[in-house]
Amino acid sequence: MRTLKLVLSYDGTAYAGWQVQPQCQTVQGVLEAAIEKITGRGARTVASGRTDAGVHALGQVVAFSTESELPADVLQRALNAELPRDVAVREVTEAPDGFHPIRDAVRKRYRYVIHDGRVRDVFERQYCWHYVRGRLDADAMNRASQALLGRHDFSSFESSGAERENSVRTVFDISVERGRAGRSDRTVMDQIFLEVEADGFLYNMVRAIVGTLVEVGRGAQRETWPAEVLRAVDRAAAGPTAPPQGLFLLRVDYG
Amino acid sequence: MRTLKLVLSYDGTAYAGWQVQPQCQTVQGVLEAAIEKITGRGARTVASGRTDAGVHALGQVVAFSTESELPADVLQRALNAELPRDVAVREVTEAPDGFHPIRDAVRKRYRYVIHDGRVRDVFERQYCWHYVRGRLDADAMNRASQALLGRHDFSSFESSGAERENSVRTVFDISVERGRAGRSDRTVMDQIFLEVEADGFLYNMVRAIVGTLVEVGRGAQRETWPAEVLRAVDRAAAGPTAPPQGLFLLRVDYG
Repeated sequence: MRTLKLVLSYDGTAYAGWQVQPQCQTVQGVLEAAIEKITGRGARTVASGRTDAGVHALGQVVAFSTESELPADVLQRALNAELPRDVAVREVTEAPDGFHPIRDAVRKRYRYVIHDGRVRDVFERQYCWHYVRGRLDADAMNRASQALLGRHDFSSFESSGAERENSVRTVFDISVERGRAGRSDRTVMDQIFLEVEADGFLYNMVRAIVGTLVEVGRGAQRETWPAEVLRAVDRAAAGPTAPPQGLFLLRVDYG
Repeated sequence: MRTLKLVLSYDGTAYAGWQVQPQCQTVQGVLEAAIEKITGRGARTVASGRTDAGVHALGQVVAFSTESELPADVLQRALNAELPRDVAVREVTEAPDGFHPIRDAVRKRYRYVIHDGRVRDVFERQYCWHYVRGRLDADAMNRASQALLGRHDFSSFESSGAERENSVRTVFDISVERGRAGRSDRTVMDQIFLEVEADGFLYNMVRAIVGTLVEVGRGAQRETWPAEVLRAVDRAAAGPTAPPQGLFLLRVDYG
């Protein structure tokens, strides 16, 4: 047996999230089906973390053990030929002994995209939150977000349903900026990008942070409010959870 | 009666092109249904030109006449609320008397996107031609494309099936460059953008130009070959027609 590490990108639109569930199309489900077809054996995959329905990944990390002796690059091409067009294997490498994608992760980075243009961007409709209630102040959101930097109890930004042993995490980097859209030149300044990097994330943490910062961006709360939310250590203190389709798991780093 | 001019963007993936056809979902079909629902009267729309199945638009121009007295901005919001999420009305303005979107167009600009990375970009799969046979030389394609600048008979780049009175067109600008991708940082240099602007385009002209330039980009033809294709005035002389999903109608200019 050997353990392989995959780096995966997927468009989450058509999936009920990463994790296998009965009666649902999931990313794990289509990946395990492709592995079984290629290697002739069922395999259990483990990802660095679940992603919810509609959430996307540019660099999800997944491991599985196999008796297959196919070279990594052959396996990669075979998987990409077998997988649906909205899932792609970017890399296949041999994992170190005992590698575990959840336990061994040291940093993760997410992006969240908000579009606050008056008219929806048809090409981004599945890849952003179209915020329709007016312009957001991205600079204010950026300043407010800096209170989340460092080591804190992030309970205020954790959805219930997935209790962790502890809710202390360290945010290494967080920023909000208005920026370039992808395809639509016209919406050049209609998109806002939040990026956040931490040693780990609680359930729905990024989406709760976004929902909270948007309260600042629309002028409903002061820039100091997210710091107060953090100190409250109470989910009820934070803003609403932003919708899933704006969220991208960018990458997972290992030691 | 008044005539309104709309600027439309649409994701062509789900449509059998612009023009109404029996048994098919078309952009014109969903737009006319939305107009009828809002104004209470059927309306016949005219676009600056048809787009084929799978082709996208950022700035298609469409006109229609109506007895409705709704202000333009009210009509725009109502249309955007009624239309499917993959079609959006960017602008509604009163058209000058006698305005005709085909006859009065003085320039059109298209973009074509090729992705030549080894692994597909899951987010761009419906918005580019994933060229899988290796790296293309975008600089060579750009140099070769310059032979198409100016006033020429473009018969070599016209698909049969849509005979025009004459096939002389003037290309004002054409360029090919390797550039930034939209969403996927990793594919920063995996995309090639062709942009071309002319006083008009023959049927499938952009896709035939792209197919021809790709022959140069992959090294199968010399950089001087597109000039020879042009002079041949014979469709059989050109390269294959590039697939539709990489093509975007960017804008249409009027005098």
